[in-house]
Amino acid sequence: MTPALLPPSRRRGRPGHDLASVLAAAVELFNERGYDGTSMRDLAARLGIAKSAIYHHVTGKEELLSLALDRALDGLATVTSRVRALPAPAVERLEYLVRGSVEVLEAQLPYVTLLLRVRGNTDVERAALDKRRAFDRFVADLVAEAVRDGDIRPDADAMITARLLFGLVNSVVEWYRPDRRGQAAPLADAICAMAFDGLRTRRPETLSSGSRSAGRDRPAAAGPG
Amino acid sequence: MTPALLPPSRRRGRPGHDLASVLAAAVELFNERGYDGTSMRDLAARLGIAKSAIYHHVTGKEELLSLALDRALDGLATVTSRVRALPAPAVERLEYLVRGSVEVLEAQLPYVTLLLRVRGNTDVERAALDKRRAFDRFVADLVAEAVRDGDIRPDADAMITARLLFGLVNSVVEWYRPDRRGQAAPLADAICAMAFDGLRTRRPETLSSGSRSAGRDRPAAAGPG
Repeated sequence: MTPALLPPSRRRGRPGHDLASVLAAAVELFNERGYDGTSMRDLAARLGIAKSAIYHHVTGKEELLSLALDRALDGLATVTSRVRALPAPAVERLEYLVRGSVEVLEAQLPYVTLLLRVRGNTDVERAALDKRRAFDRFVADLVAEAVRDGDIRPDADAMITARLLFGLVNSVVEWYRPDRRGQAAPLADAICAMAFDGLRTRRPETLSSGSRSAGRDRPAAAGPG
Repeated sequence: MTPALLPPSRRRGRPGHDLASVLAAAVELFNERGYDGTSMRDLAARLGIAKSAIYHHVTGKEELLSLALDRALDGLATVTSRVRALPAPAVERLEYLVRGSVEVLEAQLPYVTLLLRVRGNTDVERAALDKRRAFDRFVADLVAEAVRDGDIRPDADAMITARLLFGLVNSVVEWYRPDRRGQAAPLADAICAMAFDGLRTRRPETLSSGSRSAGRDRPAAAGPG
């Protein structure tokens, strides 16, 4: 019996439980309990439907994970393609990448959260980790190019800078809860202002020789202990 | 029968399994499987001892969690006390706090990782979250004071800046694996250089009016889409 021969209610589960809502509930559970700690039985209970109704939509838990991770990865791939095509200096492409990533993060918050928690226990997870690593290398290459252009400080290590920059962007999933769409731009502004231009007030050179001088030539504060 | 009356091997578990090594194994498991997903049976299996041997050291799983979180929180409390006593402008106390936190993170990496993953399902977790929130407020107050001093940009929102700054610091647990102690200083340098002074090269004012000008008055790159 092919799905097309089933009545619509059996083909699609209960009304309101299409693939998108099954996926949303799955991602919610994966984020709450971990992928390994979530069973198809848990998902059925959360949706209030029989386990068999979920199998009308997907082959199993791993397909749900795959669909969920693709949603985050596809968003990032779109931004990355645009950045590659951008006729601008590397430092500006890097800033565009940060802003685009914050937009993906806002639009796909639970999916990006899941992606960031993937640890690599299954083929689907390992494939996602490979794509994250390729993304990190792309960022590091942009940083290195911007250093060669003289637009990023020459003492900035490309890979460490890439990790810190997207560590900063990704840290937002821990506390950012947009109550409506379109709040990503002010957040991206705050992130870019800190990462590219720094928190410290830029004072005119003539004032920068004092004990509270601005700028990175100021002696660093001593660490504790 | 008091513990003192037991022979040493029963009082302390097998040789090499004192409270510190039980705690280290517990934190390793909590980070791998989550606190809720780890049982005392799992811990006994990991240590290769009987469950009853663990109860010679602690009353149960929640005490292990409490001891583990205290190790991270005590480190941060020590740094915070030093920062409060520091006779320096707020922006320098803030930088000292970042450097001190990176040192705690290096010295207590698994314990800080556990603290950052706490979600608040038990009294011990909720108490730890309260201390994290108090720490966030302390950071936000320092940011606000530094803004009033004119040392941090006036457009920086204190709470968002506090969250981004320690989001950046804490993101390091995702990738930082020190192979020996004493690597925290270069990492703290990279974090402070990015957060306080920005990645972008500081060019002399006379060069900053060009299309690739440095500084935060530069028009921001447009977001995608």
